[in-house]
Amino acid sequence: MTKDDADVDQVVTRAQRAFETARDSSPQDRAQWMGAIADSLESHRAELVALAGEETHLPEGRLQGELTRTSFQLRLLAEDLLTGEPLEATIDHADETWGMGPRPDIRRVNVPLGVVGVFGASNFPFAFSVIGGDSAAALAAGCAVVHKIHEAHPALGRRTTELVTEALAAAGAPTDLFQAVSTRADGEALVDHPLVRAVSFTGSERVGRLLMERAASRPEPIPFYGELGSINPVFVTRRAWEERGASIAAEYVQSFTLGMGQFCTKPGLLITPTLSEEDTRALVDAVGEVSPSPMLTPQLAEGFIAARSEMAERQVRALAPGGTGTAPAPALFTTTAAEVTEDPQIMREEMFGPASIVVQYENEQELAQVAELLEGQLTATVQGEEGDDVEELLAALEARTGRVLWNGWPTGVSVTYAQQHGGPFPATTAPTTTSVGTAAVRRFMRPVAYQNLPDPLLPPSLQDANPWGIARRVDGRWTGPQAGKP
Amino acid sequence: MTKDDADVDQVVTRAQRAFETARDSSPQDRAQWMGAIADSLESHRAELVALAGEETHLPEGRLQGELTRTSFQLRLLAEDLLTGEPLEATIDHADETWGMGPRPDIRRVNVPLGVVGVFGASNFPFAFSVIGGDSAAALAAGCAVVHKIHEAHPALGRRTTELVTEALAAAGAPTDLFQAVSTRADGEALVDHPLVRAVSFTGSERVGRLLMERAASRPEPIPFYGELGSINPVFVTRRAWEERGASIAAEYVQSFTLGMGQFCTKPGLLITPTLSEEDTRALVDAVGEVSPSPMLTPQLAEGFIAARSEMAERQVRALAPGGTGTAPAPALFTTTAAEVTEDPQIMREEMFGPASIVVQYENEQELAQVAELLEGQLTATVQGEEGDDVEELLAALEARTGRVLWNGWPTGVSVTYAQQHGGPFPATTAPTTTSVGTAAVRRFMRPVAYQNLPDPLLPPSLQDANPWGIARRVDGRWTGPQAGKP
Repeated sequence: MTKDDADVDQVVTRAQRAFETARDSSPQDRAQWMGAIADSLESHRAELVALAGEETHLPEGRLQGELTRTSFQLRLLAEDLLTGEPLEATIDHADETWGMGPRPDIRRVNVPLGVVGVFGASNFPFAFSVIGGDSAAALAAGCAVVHKIHEAHPALGRRTTELVTEALAAAGAPTDLFQAVSTRADGEALVDHPLVRAVSFTGSERVGRLLMERAASRPEPIPFYGELGSINPVFVTRRAWEERGASIAAEYVQSFTLGMGQFCTKPGLLITPTLSEEDTRALVDAVGEVSPSPMLTPQLAEGFIAARSEMAERQVRALAPGGTGTAPAPALFTTTAAEVTEDPQIMREEMFGPASIVVQYENEQELAQVAELLEGQLTATVQGEEGDDVEELLAALEARTGRVLWNGWPTGVSVTYAQQHGGPFPATTAPTTTSVGTAAVRRFMRPVAYQNLPDPLLPPSLQDANPWGIARRVDGRWTGPQAGKP
Repeated sequence: MTKDDADVDQVVTRAQRAFETARDSSPQDRAQWMGAIADSLESHRAELVALAGEETHLPEGRLQGELTRTSFQLRLLAEDLLTGEPLEATIDHADETWGMGPRPDIRRVNVPLGVVGVFGASNFPFAFSVIGGDSAAALAAGCAVVHKIHEAHPALGRRTTELVTEALAAAGAPTDLFQAVSTRADGEALVDHPLVRAVSFTGSERVGRLLMERAASRPEPIPFYGELGSINPVFVTRRAWEERGASIAAEYVQSFTLGMGQFCTKPGLLITPTLSEEDTRALVDAVGEVSPSPMLTPQLAEGFIAARSEMAERQVRALAPGGTGTAPAPALFTTTAAEVTEDPQIMREEMFGPASIVVQYENEQELAQVAELLEGQLTATVQGEEGDDVEELLAALEARTGRVLWNGWPTGVSVTYAQQHGGPFPATTAPTTTSVGTAAVRRFMRPVAYQNLPDPLLPPSLQDANPWGIARRVDGRWTGPQAGKP
């Protein structure tokens, strides 16, 4: 065991002890802990936003919004927990007349998995980092969290960790319920540790796949929730382009260059009818008007420029070649539906940064054909008009995408009950789950059934008196009292 | 591509075409297809039970019950589908006042994954084979199924497949929605095929782990739902043993020798206070009274005898050494809590067949200590009396088990809304899922969110008019009309 491994071993062992207390906590307790964290983030807003600005070069407005989202998310997940929704409490009373033969009393509830390892993302210093969506979901589930701080914002990571642990302590949560580690070796030791029961990760396909295989090859494999990458194609029907091509082009350039294109939902493809000279000029002009800012890290800038250069070698034409350095000017490529049919890899290589590709089609049937060539996506968008025949296109997109948008742009992911941020590989490694929205909590729970247990030995969620007042499915029917299920 | 691969390629390609029709079917359609299969199984009951009896050597009563369970399961899952429960339809209307900033209209529903590969089990020729729980769940989800027939009952597998495909055709389901393949090479090609979107498997830890790694190392990894093995410990408190030791011993012997111990829920461990000479004699006598019958296959008998012989090499004492041949007499070992603390592997090696181990403890605190040494389990049982201090024991069991029983026996798994048949590795490869009960359907679906889609372009499950009449969560609150959610 190396020194890093030994440190991580101590951290995880402490986390396990904290978990053993936290797992019996009530929804009310956990909601209070999460509320305390949200309050602390809000009361240190100026300090955190300044620190994040220094380390990430992201504009202040964006960071303010992201911090709002982060504290909102903690509160929404806490609120949802009070309804009992994530617990899915289900009670089947003993039934002598049950169709396959008498059934015993069986009651099921979701219980927390245990210690969860959460890897922070480079591009969301708040919302997908220390106490972002994954950590919030794991805490709501009743898990302990060991967070791997991203090397792109270490000072912010340490400071946020301090605030979270202080807030938890003040709110009476078990000590060590939330801890952080920071080196790459720490991260690997975390994935390997026998007491870690699940890992979540947001980052590159390369690193994500390595960690996924690491989690699967443990003596006891564990769930690995990796959000790896997405191209986020936007399909424009002929009528939509005729009606509002100019505004679509302008919005597209704004969306793919927003935050220097460092969003997992950046539109990397725009599929349009053959561009007129005027269309092309408008796009090039719009790209030219964007003033580049520094990318999150010099390494990311380097990786982006390399990916962009590789793309330039394929059957694409550069409308805007893009810049170099740590704040590269945005790039725009174009190609045709015929070319991508020949070489679908054009549509599969993520350029994480301000670059995108316009794929021009000759006839509208090519829209669905191009869609069929895509790998798994977080999002896919259709820009269309009422009456457009998009049934086949939508079916192709639904089959490979987590979120399908109409006449919008994929950047900006609202945290709601219905949100789905996920998708088939390589968008994620776990297509049946989401990392945003209230359903994200489910990733960190597993169901346990209790057969014929005396009422006092059952967890409160399943006791006859329903002391937590949660929604429950009883003998096949949902029943109150409940906040969520009337 | 070998001949087998080419055959499987054709089968899967046809299945994909069938899926592309089936995915848009209504819950009513699918429920009707599943009901037609159940009707066909029932109307061929005598033929199927006779065929299964020839190939599996299982007693007729057991096979009759298993067939009842299989058709019941199809109908229960179909009925649950009509309530909309597996779809988890969730609608968030656009909201300008949403806490993190205005939210768009977002609606989420679970959609079928695609073609699913289902591996049949040796030990349940109906309930976990051709049209058992996994296939029923996949069809309910809207998936197409390619089933790998188990080599332990090929004629039954082929005949059942015929009946299923005929019933589906008569009910108007898409052609090739259900197909079967049969060789080992077919099974491997199935796991590898790019159009296969998930695999479910019930069998040994060795084969399950190999297939799991195969599924994870595909260019596009897919979910692998493996149910691999379980020891199913039964913990007896001192008072329970004093009150009813004789009946516990008798029921235990009956449970671990039932169906020649070929159940994934066979109790492989009984943890009791130190046995008196009389206790020991009663156990030995009970084991001696069991008349062995042939195991499912000669290979399974061979594997069982090998596992039993390896166990005999450990720090255990044979109370009944067990027999040889294809119908071996049951074996009973004993050891102490101190010995298993020394060598926990004693409690981790599954002997798939009629053998079990009695672990004797000196003081009751050892119960929880022994529990802490267990790997993931499908079930764990406590035999106790009112007022026993079992809190610590139950916490240890809940942390590593899918189903916790009180004063019962783990064999016999009822198909209900609350049932949970799963658990942490090695019980299964997917601890957040179940393979029995209505929640089993979720394994074969994934959520898709639709943002700002015009109502006519939404799937019916999410349209304003709720044409399927299913339960839906709207703006955080569950609403009717619904069968399941009032």
